[in-house]
Amino acid sequence: MTLETLGIQAKKAERELLKLNTTKKNECLQAVADRLVASTTEILEANAEDVRIAREKGMKESLIDRLALTENRIGAMAEGLISLIALEDPIGEVLEAKIRPNGLEIGKKRVPLGVIGIIYESRPNVTADAFGLCFKTSNAVILKGGSDAIHSNKAIVNVIRKALDAMGVTPDSIQLVEDTSRETAKKMMQMNQYLDVLIPRGGAGLIRTVVENSTVPVIETGTGNCHIYVDASADIDMAVNIIDNAKTQRTGVCNACESLVIHKDIADQVLPAVCERLFNKNVEIRGDEKCCRINSRIIPATEEDWGQEYLDYILSAKIVNSLDEAIDHINRYNTKHSEAIITKDYANARRFLEEIDAAAVYVNASTRFTDGFEFGFGAEIGISTQKLHARGPMGLKELTTTKYIIYGNGQIRP
Amino acid sequence: MTLETLGIQAKKAERELLKLNTTKKNECLQAVADRLVASTTEILEANAEDVRIAREKGMKESLIDRLALTENRIGAMAEGLISLIALEDPIGEVLEAKIRPNGLEIGKKRVPLGVIGIIYESRPNVTADAFGLCFKTSNAVILKGGSDAIHSNKAIVNVIRKALDAMGVTPDSIQLVEDTSRETAKKMMQMNQYLDVLIPRGGAGLIRTVVENSTVPVIETGTGNCHIYVDASADIDMAVNIIDNAKTQRTGVCNACESLVIHKDIADQVLPAVCERLFNKNVEIRGDEKCCRINSRIIPATEEDWGQEYLDYILSAKIVNSLDEAIDHINRYNTKHSEAIITKDYANARRFLEEIDAAAVYVNASTRFTDGFEFGFGAEIGISTQKLHARGPMGLKELTTTKYIIYGNGQIRP
Repeated sequence: MTLETLGIQAKKAERELLKLNTTKKNECLQAVADRLVASTTEILEANAEDVRIAREKGMKESLIDRLALTENRIGAMAEGLISLIALEDPIGEVLEAKIRPNGLEIGKKRVPLGVIGIIYESRPNVTADAFGLCFKTSNAVILKGGSDAIHSNKAIVNVIRKALDAMGVTPDSIQLVEDTSRETAKKMMQMNQYLDVLIPRGGAGLIRTVVENSTVPVIETGTGNCHIYVDASADIDMAVNIIDNAKTQRTGVCNACESLVIHKDIADQVLPAVCERLFNKNVEIRGDEKCCRINSRIIPATEEDWGQEYLDYILSAKIVNSLDEAIDHINRYNTKHSEAIITKDYANARRFLEEIDAAAVYVNASTRFTDGFEFGFGAEIGISTQKLHARGPMGLKELTTTKYIIYGNGQIRP
Repeated sequence: MTLETLGIQAKKAERELLKLNTTKKNECLQAVADRLVASTTEILEANAEDVRIAREKGMKESLIDRLALTENRIGAMAEGLISLIALEDPIGEVLEAKIRPNGLEIGKKRVPLGVIGIIYESRPNVTADAFGLCFKTSNAVILKGGSDAIHSNKAIVNVIRKALDAMGVTPDSIQLVEDTSRETAKKMMQMNQYLDVLIPRGGAGLIRTVVENSTVPVIETGTGNCHIYVDASADIDMAVNIIDNAKTQRTGVCNACESLVIHKDIADQVLPAVCERLFNKNVEIRGDEKCCRINSRIIPATEEDWGQEYLDYILSAKIVNSLDEAIDHINRYNTKHSEAIITKDYANARRFLEEIDAAAVYVNASTRFTDGFEFGFGAEIGISTQKLHARGPMGLKELTTTKYIIYGNGQIRP
């Protein structure tokens, strides 16, 4: 099946999806969830083939763990779909409405984006997850997963399509690009005629490739070089607890803290306490000269460290002379994701919130909260680090657009 | 000055602009307006140079008219800036705020986009206009106008920068790319490090070039192949008045009607009335076979006509057998701008509003109302025909993004 064919079919599905009401969509999500569980054997067989090939190719066990499915993981996919049923359907919400002096009634209504393309890497659970979010928001989706997971993805998509068909809903609501070559990926990035948006989900390399090659509008879900700034007036215990949490509660995620910035007046008190706590958890700290002077176990940082997203038990640390220097440093090296200040000072808290350029800015809390579920959205398609359309955690609403609906009775423009 | 330098300076200006309150911004808009008027002679001299060169190159008089400034046109630029003073400043508005069960207070706040790039063609009034919209929303702007208007643009930007400087505000709030070559334009489209968004303003060719070459997120302001569908139950007088208005009130604009779609059951009554009205105004009608049979002055349409944005006294016309056929035809050929149905039928009106894919969908009104001023925004940077970030007329709000502001008291993630 060519990309063109997938595109034409998705456009047809887009029209059909507009006609489904929320009740019907929820029934379908339940039916898909049930069928995924009922098809566990079939999906596990396909997945075993992917895992076998990956092992033959010598894939690292940590990556195989991302690829491998189990009965529990298939159950979790189904649970993920069922959890969408309880969420409010954003489609049809009227955001604004007014009557103009000439009697025209203008309403701004939330509608689906249309056809969403998603390019992702090796985790096959993204397949069901992305389908659920797109379907709940009445969008057709064209998925392109990694070659490593192709058998699993085919099996999962096949099950979902059958479940939709049995519910009388077009199976083309979800389509898989079966050709996993890079050339096809690049062609998909130029499918402006059929795709309304392209969302890359995966590592920094994938996201860069999509941003650089796509003419279809992209929602960039991004990397996080998140900072915590300890202001001169910070509560030391609070600072240590938050830094510990943001660095070590889970290291491989985009909202983990990667860099510490400390005001010089509190460095002698806070840095030793941070070192004690983090060295106990085997965190490596790479600091500037002043940091190294405070604790000899701190490794000298290089220029590259300031821009690094370690996703590991490593933290960079820098001592600054002022809030201004802290803000300059953070705005220079951050990836516009999540940044926190620990302070008791009212004016400094306000300045940090105002002047730091990031999707989420915190006072006295861990950066780990930047997450669709923690923000109460009940779902998440990713965390946007760009400024257009969506910024920060993206839930169902971020998979919609709006349309002006205008009721007249013969108005013409004078 | 290299693009890199402009970028670095714009980033600095972005930080300074964050600190200006609405009162100060309004005072600056007034000061810039006053200085533009006071500098009329200087601006007209520069403009005369552009016009002289354009005439030497043999530019068409209609294009020279777009390029040429007069005392009145400079006055109108100043008026445009002054009109922004009365508009509500969208910056700082809190769109949502809630307290999570763990006590975290999460607010979603409207903030500037940062640095906006605008690439436009020969009309020098865009220079002041774009500055005003960006400045009112606390955005720094880098402008790249066409080579035809370079002397005028330099003069206008120079006046604006002096006025800002005199007000104690950084002149780098507005910067002009003085090198008007295509290579520089393409480099500007890749300035992801400095530009948060790129907005092309101009013809279809310019917009296509920007969409195809830009890695910076683009807001596409688009072309309009707008349709009016006359349903079987339409009021004939109303239909004729609306079609006349949408086609002839102003032909060279994106919200003008370019194509007529008529239900077969009413074609014999409505088409002759439309012909009578429009032929009197020298509109050429290009119709399908059925239309040609109804009136012999109708010229046979070709396949290309259905997709044409004429921007002229030309209208295509097609007779359909059903609402479904009308919707299919419109969704296939439209540019997702503005579409209207003329009908007395409740269900058909609802289906048209629901199933037509466009930024603005009308029942019983002229498509000419798709406009920031007509929608009551008080300003307009363009009309977006894409679905991400902004759709339809874009006012001040569409030049903003949001930021999550989170107030905690030591929360960590369990």
